[in-house]
Amino acid sequence: MRNKEVVKVLTELGNSIDAQIAKSQPPSFKVPQRGLNNVEFDRQKNILRIGKKKSSRSFLNVAHAKKFMQSILIASKCKELVSKDKTASIRELYYQLKHTIAETKENTFEDQSESDPLIVDLETSLGVLREELHLKADDKGTLIGNIVIEDSGDLIDCSKLGRSGLSIPSIIEHYKFKKVSADYILVIETGAMFDRLVEEKYHIKNNCIMVSTKGQAARGCRRLINRLHYEEKLPVLMFTDGDPWGYYIYSVVKAGSMALAHESERLGTPGTQFVGMTMTDIEEYSLQKVTEKLKDVDKKRISELLQYPWFQKKEWKKELELMVEKSVRIEQQALASKSLEFVAEEYLPEKIESKKLLS
Amino acid sequence: MRNKEVVKVLTELGNSIDAQIAKSQPPSFKVPQRGLNNVEFDRQKNILRIGKKKSSRSFLNVAHAKKFMQSILIASKCKELVSKDKTASIRELYYQLKHTIAETKENTFEDQSESDPLIVDLETSLGVLREELHLKADDKGTLIGNIVIEDSGDLIDCSKLGRSGLSIPSIIEHYKFKKVSADYILVIETGAMFDRLVEEKYHIKNNCIMVSTKGQAARGCRRLINRLHYEEKLPVLMFTDGDPWGYYIYSVVKAGSMALAHESERLGTPGTQFVGMTMTDIEEYSLQKVTEKLKDVDKKRISELLQYPWFQKKEWKKELELMVEKSVRIEQQALASKSLEFVAEEYLPEKIESKKLLS
Repeated sequence: MRNKEVVKVLTELGNSIDAQIAKSQPPSFKVPQRGLNNVEFDRQKNILRIGKKKSSRSFLNVAHAKKFMQSILIASKCKELVSKDKTASIRELYYQLKHTIAETKENTFEDQSESDPLIVDLETSLGVLREELHLKADDKGTLIGNIVIEDSGDLIDCSKLGRSGLSIPSIIEHYKFKKVSADYILVIETGAMFDRLVEEKYHIKNNCIMVSTKGQAARGCRRLINRLHYEEKLPVLMFTDGDPWGYYIYSVVKAGSMALAHESERLGTPGTQFVGMTMTDIEEYSLQKVTEKLKDVDKKRISELLQYPWFQKKEWKKELELMVEKSVRIEQQALASKSLEFVAEEYLPEKIESKKLLS
Repeated sequence: MRNKEVVKVLTELGNSIDAQIAKSQPPSFKVPQRGLNNVEFDRQKNILRIGKKKSSRSFLNVAHAKKFMQSILIASKCKELVSKDKTASIRELYYQLKHTIAETKENTFEDQSESDPLIVDLETSLGVLREELHLKADDKGTLIGNIVIEDSGDLIDCSKLGRSGLSIPSIIEHYKFKKVSADYILVIETGAMFDRLVEEKYHIKNNCIMVSTKGQAARGCRRLINRLHYEEKLPVLMFTDGDPWGYYIYSVVKAGSMALAHESERLGTPGTQFVGMTMTDIEEYSLQKVTEKLKDVDKKRISELLQYPWFQKKEWKKELELMVEKSVRIEQQALASKSLEFVAEEYLPEKIESKKLLS
């Protein structure tokens, strides 16, 4: 279904270039500007968006000619991929398109750094996700819990995957959610904390789906959280380290990222709420002995976060300012100082029950 | 079964300390030295091993006293973990043991960098795997293919996991292999190449189990390959980028690593053979246009590899020397320059069929 639409959009791009040539006009197409000065934070929807500024890319402009040619090559290869229902990594795409132009010594591409930004241009200008162009980013992340997913004809019961869990691929557009009995999604920053909660059977006792992002969430992971939230009406709770890096991972899952602001609506999940770790947890649970001192890079990152419009909420400013004041960070795994079971049996249930969540 | 043995070994350590104190001897225990001068390459078995040099750690030696106390704390906590059938990450272990000693201002541990090496000491001196002490390293890696694994009571048919695959956890000691119908294991360096082969249904058409290491293989991944090789008699083929980094990833899966030389027999799989990418592939498959120039770090790494005893085989020296001579590297994904299907339909089947493998 969506494949047909994407092929149509790509064909229209080709047709418009064709029509311009037929009318002896210099062929060109428009691309939204992607610099930071064209990224806005939509306070109402709580999401990062790309602004309205556009640039024109014209074949007869010497500065644009090579990029124009490269963009058309990429669009054409994507049309082929989608038509054949094949996918390719962005590195494979580069290798597929790299060749010497006949009767010249000119290569189509010298380096992947030439093709990558043009892929983003194409996504932005056509309003399609990279995944819908059948291009893959790196995959990362694991899922476990009460959901049956249909993937390429296989029915996967993710509550029957032992302690291992499902590897979340880079493209999840083809996933069909066949049966979802979970009450919410718990998104966890570190693999080690995910393992802890699996061992404590947290997902079973609390009937939730757990997703481990293993650091910054990959696109496949973010898209999966987004689809589960909107299609299955599942609330999303996020559990990261109590430091600027963890808070930023949360904000990307929630509001999208600056680099991919054009895809925030499909990759971000503004309804996401934050369960911990907070600076207030340190007093609340007497964790003073297991905090870590802030390093200079942490401090620098905090002051950056304090500038971002999406951290301009009272509760978040309070957390970040407390962090500076105490000059400490606190890790998820520091909860083990209480007991290994503490996080699963007390910390998370208490905070969720009493709705001590940030948003 | 194994849990009981490990508890026994830990108890014996405690008893021996006890006995020394009872006899008014200064308590001490022996630890194999882990420096590079105590690592040997066993040419016959094709594996890295720890040598015979040992150090003594004595409580009444001022330089050892703190480490002695810390080691005993770790051993005691591991005994508790194994007895309760709980696991902990090495970071959780640190947080669990960190406290101020009663009536002093002295902390048991200041930093995880104090506990990590002592864990390795304990593994080495007791001859047990870290996983058998119920301590977890980070997890990474994905598996797909014709195998049914029993994990914590769940039967997981890894041939029915769509395009997603099973997330390989950090500890796989509890896995039971219930049904293995595959002919061999193909271990793949990059996630993107794994995705490509999944999309081409390589594992189905060639009846193999595919494992993606996603860079350097994690311990769980290496142990899984080792167990599948020895318990299920599956040949292991490895497919990496054609560069010193890929070749080193291969050598770690095969012969073990220097840092974990004491565990090579359980983490390494000396029977592993190498299918590609090789320098000879470049001519053979006309890939000259899609090679990458060597950087200085690559060249430095090649000269290091040329020093390692386990790369002193004619065929490997030839590959590494050719790499220097051509001054290029070649990635797995460069095969996409032929066609997306090329790797699955021609490259791998041809090389495996004609046994063009290095070992």
